[in-house]
Amino acid sequence: MKKLINGVDTVLQESLDGFVAAHSDIVAMGQDRKFVRRAALNPGKVGLISGGGSGHEPLHAGFVGFGMLDAACPGEVFTSPTPDQMLEAADAVDQGAGVLFLVKNYEGDVMNFEMAAEMASGTVATTIINDDVAVETSTFSTGRRGVAGTMIVEKIVGAAAEAGADLASLKALGDRVNESSRSMGVALTSCTVPAAGKPMFEIGEDEMEMGVGIHGEPGRRRVALKPAADIAEEMIEAVCHDLNPKGDVLLLVNGFGATPAMELYLMYENARRALAKRGVKPVRSLVGNYVTSLDMAGCSLTLTSVDQEILQGWDAPVHTPALRWGM
Amino acid sequence: MKKLINGVDTVLQESLDGFVAAHSDIVAMGQDRKFVRRAALNPGKVGLISGGGSGHEPLHAGFVGFGMLDAACPGEVFTSPTPDQMLEAADAVDQGAGVLFLVKNYEGDVMNFEMAAEMASGTVATTIINDDVAVETSTFSTGRRGVAGTMIVEKIVGAAAEAGADLASLKALGDRVNESSRSMGVALTSCTVPAAGKPMFEIGEDEMEMGVGIHGEPGRRRVALKPAADIAEEMIEAVCHDLNPKGDVLLLVNGFGATPAMELYLMYENARRALAKRGVKPVRSLVGNYVTSLDMAGCSLTLTSVDQEILQGWDAPVHTPALRWGM
Repeated sequence: MKKLINGVDTVLQESLDGFVAAHSDIVAMGQDRKFVRRAALNPGKVGLISGGGSGHEPLHAGFVGFGMLDAACPGEVFTSPTPDQMLEAADAVDQGAGVLFLVKNYEGDVMNFEMAAEMASGTVATTIINDDVAVETSTFSTGRRGVAGTMIVEKIVGAAAEAGADLASLKALGDRVNESSRSMGVALTSCTVPAAGKPMFEIGEDEMEMGVGIHGEPGRRRVALKPAADIAEEMIEAVCHDLNPKGDVLLLVNGFGATPAMELYLMYENARRALAKRGVKPVRSLVGNYVTSLDMAGCSLTLTSVDQEILQGWDAPVHTPALRWGM
Repeated sequence: MKKLINGVDTVLQESLDGFVAAHSDIVAMGQDRKFVRRAALNPGKVGLISGGGSGHEPLHAGFVGFGMLDAACPGEVFTSPTPDQMLEAADAVDQGAGVLFLVKNYEGDVMNFEMAAEMASGTVATTIINDDVAVETSTFSTGRRGVAGTMIVEKIVGAAAEAGADLASLKALGDRVNESSRSMGVALTSCTVPAAGKPMFEIGEDEMEMGVGIHGEPGRRRVALKPAADIAEEMIEAVCHDLNPKGDVLLLVNGFGATPAMELYLMYENARRALAKRGVKPVRSLVGNYVTSLDMAGCSLTLTSVDQEILQGWDAPVHTPALRWGM
């Protein structure tokens, strides 16, 4: 295992310390590193909290800040955070208007966020994100997995929360953006969890895992590596078959961590062509490493069907470590 | 070779097409893909042009836009663009106030930008960037290599150009920011140029290349992989020995393309500690993949000694595909 670390036991804490130090104008550390929160809260606003296993950076802590999350709870690598982390985060950011949990659909995460919601003193609602069309159930999930669509939900719900929407409206919006979003991923290499010290899975020099999850979970099939155009076509077909987009979409080409920007933009071009054949047009685009799997090579494509409300939410000002525009 | 491509001959063109399509609100393609330019120019402003071999994305095209470059000329992977690319870019963005070339110190780039400067009809000045302290001469350079400090020069000179500075002032500022900036890199793996189809160099499972260049060129020494704290200490010592920073600095932790954010932030934390021991404080920070080497794992550390003018330039609004704040 080749990593820039000091030891497997301190990876998360040193990485979090660096993250909070590098972005101290935006975020602050919660007690005992249980959560990362906004340095300054917006009084009266519904608190938005997400979290999950680490190793997907910048998700989630990189999206804490104006226009997105109020707090993020980092679990150990590929491991759900604990209910007490979510409870303390909720206590820290609840301004009296309630808290919305944004939770990726994995059994551990869903169970722990549910426990935290039951134990919380304030009002809590939850939106579950399950945008991955690759498989119906998986290693860590009952039902579809939550993957890169999560950051789109966080962005659009975040904008509405900033504009003063109440808890019920935000939950409804989160559910709607989730239902409007579908993703699929492909891996060319495995990823290596520091504590395990070896790749999550073996994959041949001429193979790819089509429909891979963001923890290196198996996807639909292990097949020979194909040209990018064929990969994009298969992923777009799977996503469009399920989403049935009617016109304008947001297209996210998300790198898993080890794939260069040059290839991600090439995949964007091939995805765009596959969409054009179907009369679907990306009116908003994002290309980069946003919902990653440590050092896995590969990418996912996410489509969100957009309307005026979703576009306004996407375009609204945001000021977080990993996403910033309009301010 | 495992890459998301259709063929080695179309990597650059498809990637550029995707890039321009994804960011059509900011950039436009020059004729025959010779350069990428701002979609809208700012009349009367000095034109800033950079360029170099592809494979370092988002450098340079990702920094075209308000507050940074007016145009970028992409060469083939790890190959200088040609003088006619630079000439056509200069013609396209020269608003009568002259053009400043920002050139990384590699023999091919310097020679071609020089030829273009001689052939240009308008007034041209050039700032050479040579921030890499690792080696005095290298595979592709006479004198120090230009690496991640390039984006800092582009940002600060870009802000001054936007504010109306003239060509001579901008060249002087570019030279000064370059002289205030020093970098050093480390590689854990090689990178693979698509047309070559195999890694640039061989490296053992327990080795790292200390002082590596951004084309996989050899650095200072091939040594056993060490803890992140030792790596950061050696890099910070090399940079500080040369730069001799007196107080406040800008600290850039730059990923080479295949190293996850988690490790980059951990390196930030270790670099910050190494600086603290020396009484040096990062008052501005940037962590991410900005000046990459295709799929190489590793990172570089860049320090820029800051003063009021440099800080103002850094903080000024910027709106490019890869760097955006304040607007």
